[in-house]
Amino acid sequence: MNLTEHTITIQVRYPEVDAMGYLHHGRFLQYFEMGRIELLRASGHNYAQLEQDGVFFVVAKAQVNYKSPARYDEQLTLRTHITRQTAVRIDHAYELRRGEVLVAEGSTTIACVNRQGQVMEIPQRLGKPVSP
Amino acid sequence: MNLTEHTITIQVRYPEVDAMGYLHHGRFLQYFEMGRIELLRASGHNYAQLEQDGVFFVVAKAQVNYKSPARYDEQLTLRTHITRQTAVRIDHAYELRRGEVLVAEGSTTIACVNRQGQVMEIPQRLGKPVSP
Amino acid sequence: MNLTEHTITIQVRYPEVDAMGYLHHGRFLQYFEMGRIELLRASGHNYAQLEQDGVFFVVAKAQVNYKSPARYDEQLTLRTHITRQTAVRIDHAYELRRGEVLVAEGSTTIACVNRQGQVMEIPQRLGKPVSP
Amino acid sequence: MNLTEHTITIQVRYPEVDAMGYLHHGRFLQYFEMGRIELLRASGHNYAQLEQDGVFFVVAKAQVNYKSPARYDEQLTLRTHITRQTAVRIDHAYELRRGEVLVAEGSTTIACVNRQGQVMEIPQRLGKPVSP
Repeated sequence: MNLTEHTITIQVRYPEVDAMGYLHHGRFLQYFEMGRIELLRASGHNYAQLEQDGVFFVVAKAQVNYKSPARYDEQLTLRTHITRQTAVRIDHAYELRRGEVLVAEGSTTIACVNRQGQVMEIPQRLGKPVSP
Repeated sequence: MNLTEHTITIQVRYPEVDAMGYLHHGRFLQYFEMGRIELLRASGHNYAQLEQDGVFFVVAKAQVNYKSPARYDEQLTLRTHITRQTAVRIDHAYELRRGEVLVAEGSTTIACVNRQGQVMEIPQRLGKPVSP
Repeated sequence: MNLTEHTITIQVRYPEVDAMGYLHHGRFLQYFEMGRIELLRASGHNYAQLEQDGVFFVVAKAQVNYKSPARYDEQLTLRTHITRQTAVRIDHAYELRRGEVLVAEGSTTIACVNRQGQVMEIPQRLGKPVSP
Repeated sequence: MNLTEHTITIQVRYPEVDAMGYLHHGRFLQYFEMGRIELLRASGHNYAQLEQDGVFFVVAKAQVNYKSPARYDEQLTLRTHITRQTAVRIDHAYELRRGEVLVAEGSTTIACVNRQGQVMEIPQRLGKPVSP
């Protein structure tokens, strides 16, 4: 059963912070990727297996609004949800929080491609997601 | 003299590519950061020195449109230009190309903060930028 | 009270694995660094605070023996222990395991330096470590 | 023709330096990997192609001696040379320099494995290396 949303917790690691002691702004896209992979897994799919089957997802667009800095060792929660899905693309939105405080929000559009990088239809078994 | 734009070349390194052999989508924000730092330097400023002086820039917003994959060892050019500057914020736009081909375009908003993370005015010596 | 050893758990993240799906060999030094920082913290010290006080540790030597690959999402335990401490240097040894299986073992020598990078004595409050 | 040594230049990038402004000690293993890949390429081989052919190299041992810090933007030269090659393993040694100054030296042992991670013989076309 394909879910539309999933929440994970992520602890900020020392090598991820910058000279100010803040989580580096480039790391947020990695966190979002972790959110997508875990949403997929919560739905019973394995990203590494998909890649071995020749199904890849490439990021076509990404956008982040940074609201409040996150620091080393803080425990954050990341909510990932699917906001739109077409035959070949999936839009996700993300909310990264420390407790109730919004650390960042963002969105991405990913496209399904084959090993040659050509757009292909998202395999039947990955859609249509349903609300949890 | 503060410039409004600057172009650098960046070679894609092996540890930066993903399982498909493409430059990982999270790396683009690091490349953009390199573009900002080099624009600053071409204007006669040193980012590390600014940080030692208690002047920091934090990213408030970032956005990337990925147009064409970049691969290991490719030589890319990144054009960074300032599109807007207020007393406390600077907007940059970016074009990453392989020859004539657009690999990605993006934009960021950065804010000037002190060591405590409080918004402060951009030091006089960093503005107003002029066209090159 | 300064401890001579400490154990943490680390979960392998997706961006840390290579094209084979294995934890990239360069990441192990980051894990060891996490182990050192947590050993310090378990002893009541804060690495970021030390840096603000002008006390830095630089790595002089590092060595890793890779025994068994670690994969995405695996839960590993890292035991960090101090094997030798002089007035200016600390030697650590590391064992990274998945359950009972040894994933890697390694060692480092770190030296205490000031902000200018000159070797200095390890502050009194950081030594002498005692067994837990 | 397989070469026993090769030298490349590497410029230290901003995201690679730590809070002291020094190249992070974990990055050196990435630089060494770049050195191996370029030595392979100078010999007419393509690492990505080898992986597609099911030939992988995993690192069994690594060791680094850090001699002098490297800073942002410095141009370094890395000399990579093969010190020993058996049917299934290759030992490399590395010297990283800034001009004449030795920044670090190190060594690695890599083993040839198939897609399942089982040790296999290094393909005939990759050995025996000859001095350049």
